[in-house]
Amino acid sequence: MKYADRMGKLNASEIRELLKVTDRPEIISFAGGLPAAELFPIEQMAAACMTVLENDGEKALQYSTTEGLAPLRKWIAERENSRIGTKLTADNILITHGSQQALDLIGKLLINKDDVVLCESPTYLSALNVFKTFEGNILEVQTDEEGMIVSDLEQLLASTANVKLIYAIPTFQNPSGKTWSFERKKQILAIANRYDVAVIEDAPYEELRYSGEATPPMFSFPQSENVLRTGSFSKILCPGLRIGWIAADSKVIEKLVLIKQSTDLQSNTFAQRQIFQFIQDHAIDEHISRLIQVYRLRRDAAISAIETYFPKNIQYTHPKGGLFIWLELPESINTTDLLQKSLEQNVAFVSGESFYAEKPRYNTMRLNFSCMDEKRIEAGFKILGELISNELKDE
Amino acid sequence: MKYADRMGKLNASEIRELLKVTDRPEIISFAGGLPAAELFPIEQMAAACMTVLENDGEKALQYSTTEGLAPLRKWIAERENSRIGTKLTADNILITHGSQQALDLIGKLLINKDDVVLCESPTYLSALNVFKTFEGNILEVQTDEEGMIVSDLEQLLASTANVKLIYAIPTFQNPSGKTWSFERKKQILAIANRYDVAVIEDAPYEELRYSGEATPPMFSFPQSENVLRTGSFSKILCPGLRIGWIAADSKVIEKLVLIKQSTDLQSNTFAQRQIFQFIQDHAIDEHISRLIQVYRLRRDAAISAIETYFPKNIQYTHPKGGLFIWLELPESINTTDLLQKSLEQNVAFVSGESFYAEKPRYNTMRLNFSCMDEKRIEAGFKILGELISNELKDE
Repeated sequence: MKYADRMGKLNASEIRELLKVTDRPEIISFAGGLPAAELFPIEQMAAACMTVLENDGEKALQYSTTEGLAPLRKWIAERENSRIGTKLTADNILITHGSQQALDLIGKLLINKDDVVLCESPTYLSALNVFKTFEGNILEVQTDEEGMIVSDLEQLLASTANVKLIYAIPTFQNPSGKTWSFERKKQILAIANRYDVAVIEDAPYEELRYSGEATPPMFSFPQSENVLRTGSFSKILCPGLRIGWIAADSKVIEKLVLIKQSTDLQSNTFAQRQIFQFIQDHAIDEHISRLIQVYRLRRDAAISAIETYFPKNIQYTHPKGGLFIWLELPESINTTDLLQKSLEQNVAFVSGESFYAEKPRYNTMRLNFSCMDEKRIEAGFKILGELISNELKDE
Repeated sequence: MKYADRMGKLNASEIRELLKVTDRPEIISFAGGLPAAELFPIEQMAAACMTVLENDGEKALQYSTTEGLAPLRKWIAERENSRIGTKLTADNILITHGSQQALDLIGKLLINKDDVVLCESPTYLSALNVFKTFEGNILEVQTDEEGMIVSDLEQLLASTANVKLIYAIPTFQNPSGKTWSFERKKQILAIANRYDVAVIEDAPYEELRYSGEATPPMFSFPQSENVLRTGSFSKILCPGLRIGWIAADSKVIEKLVLIKQSTDLQSNTFAQRQIFQFIQDHAIDEHISRLIQVYRLRRDAAISAIETYFPKNIQYTHPKGGLFIWLELPESINTTDLLQKSLEQNVAFVSGESFYAEKPRYNTMRLNFSCMDEKRIEAGFKILGELISNELKDE
């Protein structure tokens, strides 16, 4: 069979492959981006299923509109309005099969072969594969503690033809855990507007804040017509139902609906109704507060274990929310080799190299702290700290 | 915002737009391809939800593998083996968000810009949009009562560069209701193999047979490495859960898994477990038998109403299964105009023109008979028959 050219560019997600191994209960895994399953509101979801099937069973199992369940779209619009001060209606929302599909649909909407996509360095690796699917060329914008570096972005835009899209995760970034400053968001959006380049503001972690104050997202700024915002129930409720959304100008949503039709007709009707029923019957804010309480303790345990067990000459981020800590080890350490050694001791993480679009840094790694309790975090980080110390001793 | 070139080619599905209108209870609709909602096993699905959430709640709501739920893949493989004599294992099956997504993933796998896709005339319109998404050029193969016409396919393959794919719905085709003969399947696959062209055998309706004997699908033939088979629970269980699959050579499945990763990570974990629980607890064959009983009566009512109420100088198919009858009216009648008049009388159908990749025939129409009972079929077909007769009288 003769495959399309794009197949030469796609790489298997190292993480998804790794997850098959880390499923074993004896593994202490900091590898995935998995939310804590013990916090899923299973009983309430069961009640929501029953209510939906009793009241609206035929509709819940039937085809429905491509746009998504109207009251769910309205609810998302109004929640965004109250959280970030936008003026959205249901017409600004398309329901998707998770925010990964949101990226796929936006890729289809915007990217021609050889169009350029600019992204953070490092960035979410499965976004890289989306842009490669549409044969885009991906360039890294250098990134510091406050976000993309303005001068680097300016220089890339001035010197590169066919830049179509800037991809950013400004809050609790995957993989780095970093959050953009308000000033930086203003600067980056102004530049994007000046060059008439679209911006994806990927925001799946935004509600999981454990410390510090939020600043408004770019999507809420006055001149944000070029911004497409992607969101998801995966991290605030559960990922197994694969329900996310795109918020954008209603004309853009109309185009995305066309694309969604040929991609998979519509999102799962039952899952949409199930989630809508859950948020009718339960205060999702209270559920999120509970997640935040638990995850904050885990983040604190992770940071404290790094301070206790890791050698001093490593760099690591101090995330104010989200699921990830990013580490930069001395350059002598290759984290792919380190991963092999740590798997032998039943501890998993992800080496950082695959998060780079252009120039992989082999001494980086991502640690997820959301799906292990504090005891396992301490035990696992201790093993990692010792392994890293040993590597450095050997030199 | 500057859209990608593909956006110039995509058309809104007339049917999906029409479905928004036909949702009103007073409308007698033959427009959609909707299964009969009153036959959905709602109570059994509710029981399945409860069992899954009680026994495996955390897993059911969590991320899982891109390939799909292992026991469900195995079940599908074994069911295919017993139905059509294949020797599949779970490795030959990828779970998708409906068979529409199966087409999207295969499009990504195979189609470069300007690659040629050959399809039946007429064919499933949302498949056309998939191939357009990947900027393929679509050519129609002339089709008779037994399938694609061999000489036309031969001639197209001999005279056209870059043919990558043949798209076919050999059993109870959408929109025509036609079924390929065994002989024709052998001939077409032999030609496809000779030219090393992949074949999609789209088989969502295959199990809904009301009369006649099935012949083996191309996918079960000895030299079928180039055939990708797509299937779905939408028509044999319910479409709202959006669970379908691709059956193919395991090496091809591996590539499709890569694509699925960047497209939406995985299919809904809960929906997969829900369906798997349902088929553990209930004999799906009995459920399908019940569907067949009901749909057979509806097909018979539809054919009989055409014989009674429609003028004699129209042509129509006599489907042995599936959901659709296809009509060819005298050329003086434009079915898009006819649709406006029939909507005024609260009867909906789909005009045939959008099912053509190249040369639309404006005097054709598709009638779905699965989601209205016999009384409404008779009432609605009577109105249609009178409208058509009136059109012809006016001449």
